[in-house]
Amino acid sequence: MITVNDLNPNLLKAEYAVRGKIVQRAYELEKEGKKIIYCNIGNPQALKQKPLTYLRQLLALTEYPPLMEEPSVNKIFPKDIINKAKYILSENPNGPGAYTQSEGMNFIRKAVANFISKRDNIDADPTRIILTDGASKGIQAVFTLLMKNSNSGFMIPIPQYPLYTATISLYGAKQISYYLDEEKHWELNEKELEESIKKAIKNNIEPVAIVVINPGNPTGSVLSKENIKMIINFARKYKLSILADEVYQENIYSERHKFYSFAKVMTEMGINDVPLFSFHSTSKGFLGECGHRGGYLEARNVDSEVYYQLVKLQSISLCANTAGQIVTYAMVDPPHENDESYETYIKEKNTILGELKKKAEILGEEINKIKGMSLKHPYGAMYAFVKIDLPQIKNAKNYTEKELVELEAKRDFEYCYELLEETGICVVPGSGFGQKPHTYHFRITFLPPIDEIKELVKKLKIFHENYLKRLEKENK
Amino acid sequence: MITVNDLNPNLLKAEYAVRGKIVQRAYELEKEGKKIIYCNIGNPQALKQKPLTYLRQLLALTEYPPLMEEPSVNKIFPKDIINKAKYILSENPNGPGAYTQSEGMNFIRKAVANFISKRDNIDADPTRIILTDGASKGIQAVFTLLMKNSNSGFMIPIPQYPLYTATISLYGAKQISYYLDEEKHWELNEKELEESIKKAIKNNIEPVAIVVINPGNPTGSVLSKENIKMIINFARKYKLSILADEVYQENIYSERHKFYSFAKVMTEMGINDVPLFSFHSTSKGFLGECGHRGGYLEARNVDSEVYYQLVKLQSISLCANTAGQIVTYAMVDPPHENDESYETYIKEKNTILGELKKKAEILGEEINKIKGMSLKHPYGAMYAFVKIDLPQIKNAKNYTEKELVELEAKRDFEYCYELLEETGICVVPGSGFGQKPHTYHFRITFLPPIDEIKELVKKLKIFHENYLKRLEKENK
Repeated sequence: MITVNDLNPNLLKAEYAVRGKIVQRAYELEKEGKKIIYCNIGNPQALKQKPLTYLRQLLALTEYPPLMEEPSVNKIFPKDIINKAKYILSENPNGPGAYTQSEGMNFIRKAVANFISKRDNIDADPTRIILTDGASKGIQAVFTLLMKNSNSGFMIPIPQYPLYTATISLYGAKQISYYLDEEKHWELNEKELEESIKKAIKNNIEPVAIVVINPGNPTGSVLSKENIKMIINFARKYKLSILADEVYQENIYSERHKFYSFAKVMTEMGINDVPLFSFHSTSKGFLGECGHRGGYLEARNVDSEVYYQLVKLQSISLCANTAGQIVTYAMVDPPHENDESYETYIKEKNTILGELKKKAEILGEEINKIKGMSLKHPYGAMYAFVKIDLPQIKNAKNYTEKELVELEAKRDFEYCYELLEETGICVVPGSGFGQKPHTYHFRITFLPPIDEIKELVKKLKIFHENYLKRLEKENK
Repeated sequence: MITVNDLNPNLLKAEYAVRGKIVQRAYELEKEGKKIIYCNIGNPQALKQKPLTYLRQLLALTEYPPLMEEPSVNKIFPKDIINKAKYILSENPNGPGAYTQSEGMNFIRKAVANFISKRDNIDADPTRIILTDGASKGIQAVFTLLMKNSNSGFMIPIPQYPLYTATISLYGAKQISYYLDEEKHWELNEKELEESIKKAIKNNIEPVAIVVINPGNPTGSVLSKENIKMIINFARKYKLSILADEVYQENIYSERHKFYSFAKVMTEMGINDVPLFSFHSTSKGFLGECGHRGGYLEARNVDSEVYYQLVKLQSISLCANTAGQIVTYAMVDPPHENDESYETYIKEKNTILGELKKKAEILGEEINKIKGMSLKHPYGAMYAFVKIDLPQIKNAKNYTEKELVELEAKRDFEYCYELLEETGICVVPGSGFGQKPHTYHFRITFLPPIDEIKELVKKLKIFHENYLKRLEKENK
């Protein structure tokens, strides 16, 4: 028999808080009959968001083409969707049951390039696009590509989406953390970047790439063009590749904010010597098709030999799943203005984005009213990263800095654990994403229906008050 | 900019011959208008195998449940399929657009356990089953789990499916090759296993696991119960985990052969201290649903802490794609005897397996008639591993053994490359799977339609004769 001591220590170290112990406990409580509000993960359709009609119609027709021979087909499906399904099957005559090329179906790669081109008003090369099983797999592929040795360092934001820390642990690479500037609405700060990379270099780490998440997860921030320019120049200065996690590009809820892709800003700057890997997903935006694991990566300023290595890596597990590829196609080429399905599409899209906007506002405003909680209003993505005031740890000076940070992590974990036990609200502790020492946060999605969000805020308030009293009483 | 010299050397080393340079060339030739017969990869639906009707109907209904509200639904879909779709949606009320649990949907894990139980007449535990994106991802997960350090050795058969060598290169683990016994129809040979592991231990490699592919890829062999017992005892002796790649378990074409799972044989032997990881896939068998990337892994004799690490690993990329999960469900719980869809299901299944059997026989017999080619008749899987006689390399004694093997690999690559150029037949050189020094092989699938197979054999014969003449003339 084997025990954990026989296993890969890098795997043992890896932690993915979004699905960690608190969520396991939530499953248990739910089985016991407790009502749980899952605010731990960006999983819209688990929180009652409806799938887009045209997209699912397209999947039904491509999965089972004999439907198109049925006499009633025109009553059930809009004409443009039938035509689109026929087009997909003509471009991919083997159907979704066959492996595709390692990079994904060619016509979808072309459609992705068109989508980028139109979105950004720049050129995009279909032969530098790979369809992936969600963005996660694409991101892990680029980590694999760039990890020259165990000294290779990846700069990641703190707080970050824990895929990044988990992947770094798993692959045995080096993490170079940089703090986001909470006061400046979680922007990246040049001075901080410089300090963090210099410290890493001093420690003999070889920085190879910088990860940027925009719009931000868990922060809900939306980066300005200026901030992006600064990052590109910084990457250029240190010969870093950029990994641009742009999966929330459609999730922007503020009139004053706009999504700028790294590809666009870089092209406008005339820079063509900084390798850029951008990621997008069908899981977020207004599609919320998480389960289908669709997405793509685009490589820029990368020669064909380097790109070939990515394709080879993809080929080892053959190709991204075909349903996910088709969902990606639906995302990048939705119904057009004169199509029969257009009206429904626009209506569904606007409803989903409109509700997300409202929910972001309610959550942002109401939580800020709770004494002892504060947050930067989420302008994008699906989350708020809420700062909570907890009393300082007693006799803090008796601990080393490292011990203190560990105690603090334990504390925000306990906070979230008790929140779950008492209220059924499932959030993720800030320590799962990383945070500045001596601060406490939790990440909460604003995906639940509006009524639930309102109730949730009330419960948060009561819980927080009681929790502080309890801490005081226990003299912790 | 980055060049290949900046990349992960483990990735640069990894080779996946099934989709290597010969296949790239085939794509090019096809674009130029040449007719290509893709015998390089087990991709049945790319070679005109039709998808099973009930399975695709199920996908259409679960992707787009409003179909079930249509007045004509009962004319289009059998009643049992509608009920099954309703059952899936009741067990997974979020629908296929939501992330599932990391391990996959619970009711499907239970159905997998029932499938194993019924197949083998043994107990199976649903809480030790993880749904995966095809078998490949499950296999890679177990490699990640067991790779304690860069000295960890994995025993793999030669010839093997190149996922294994590629994964070992990629993860920087140690490969412990053992030769399959071509003369004994590619069985495993105890003496060979002993020699190979002892040599590895002498070289300070720490063996952690043995991989067995049964039915065999690329060999088409089917292991006897006795052979499996020997392997289990061997693994026990050396405290190895077993990775049992059983994705071709439905593909057996000989009356005299039967599939025995490692789980069954081990249980019958009363052994419960050898960790066993078994893999199955929706891509092979008679489903051939490669594109959907469905599959599962079952862990046995593994405690909950070890198993939890596998679940955690899965959680980092969230979950297997949901369409693949549903296809897995369809595979393990097909229509029952009194169901409306049963007759069609059985007819389709028997047609596919019947044709594969015929094609295996034709290919096996006809190729054996070609002078200079021989093969062990494929009793299982989808491939034949054909031995080709090529003249010895001139002045062989001037080369070291290593140089000679490299020259030989170049030679069978050239053979397959020219075969492609001349005939449009795309096969994979033996060196891509591994073979004994001074032997040459290629792997060919018997998936193309019967007519094409007959023609293909004729072309092989002519090509081989001409190729030998040419070699002679060039005095190579």
